[in-house]
Amino acid sequence: MAECITLDEFKRIDLRVGEITSCERVEGTDKLLKLTVDLGAESRQLVAGLAAHYEPQQLLGRQIVVVCNLKPAVIRGIESQGMLLAAGDGQVLGVLTPERRVQNGSKVS
Amino acid sequence: MAECITLDEFKRIDLRVGEITSCERVEGTDKLLKLTVDLGAESRQLVAGLAAHYEPQQLLGRQIVVVCNLKPAVIRGIESQGMLLAAGDGQVLGVLTPERRVQNGSKVS
Repeated sequence: MAECITLDEFKRIDLRVGEITSCERVEGTDKLLKLTVDLGAESRQLVAGLAAHYEPQQLLGRQIVVVCNLKPAVIRGIESQGMLLAAGDGQVLGVLTPERRVQNGSKVS
Repeated sequence: MAECITLDEFKRIDLRVGEITSCERVEGTDKLLKLTVDLGAESRQLVAGLAAHYEPQQLLGRQIVVVCNLKPAVIRGIESQGMLLAAGDGQVLGVLTPERRVQNGSKVS
C-alpha cells in the first residue's frame, strides 16, 4: 500500500480532459507517439509511450486525460508538454477517457 | 495555470482501476451514491457525489479510476475508502474509465 496523501496534495495535480487532434509515430522508435491535444483554451504537444498498444488512427478524435502541470520534458528531441494517463495490466493498456463526452479542457476531480 | 509539480509528486498518488460491483443511492440525499468497487486484491466502499448525473444501474459493472491512498473520509456517516475520478464541464459529468478493459486493480500511470 502506498503512503497516504492528503486531498490537498491530490488537488495540486492539474488533470484535464483533452481531445487528440493529431497523432503520429516518432520516427526511429517503436514505442513513442507524438500527439497534439486540444485542451480548450490551448493546444499541447505530448510524447507518449503508446505505439506498442495503439495505432495512431485509433486515437484520433479521442478524449484523454492529461497531467497539465508537469514541467515539460524533452523526449527524443521532442518536447512533451504533459503526460497522458493510461491503465495497464501488463498485457492490455488503455488510455483513460471520460465515459461521457465533456468539453475539452474540463477539469478532472 | 496551476503551479508545477514534479513527476515524483504525481507518482505519490496511487491511482487504480476498479469495477463497480454494487451501487445505490444514499438515503436522505439527492447527490450521493454508495458504491462497492472491486480493486482486484481488495474491495472498497466509496461515497461519491454522482447521483445527479448517474442512475445507480448505469454504473454497475463499469470500470472507474480510484485514488486509493487518501485517508478514508466519513460522509453522512458512511466511510468512503477512496475517491473516484470524474470530469465535468458544468453541464455534463462523466466518470473516467479505461478505454479498454484491463484487470481490476491495474495501476494508472
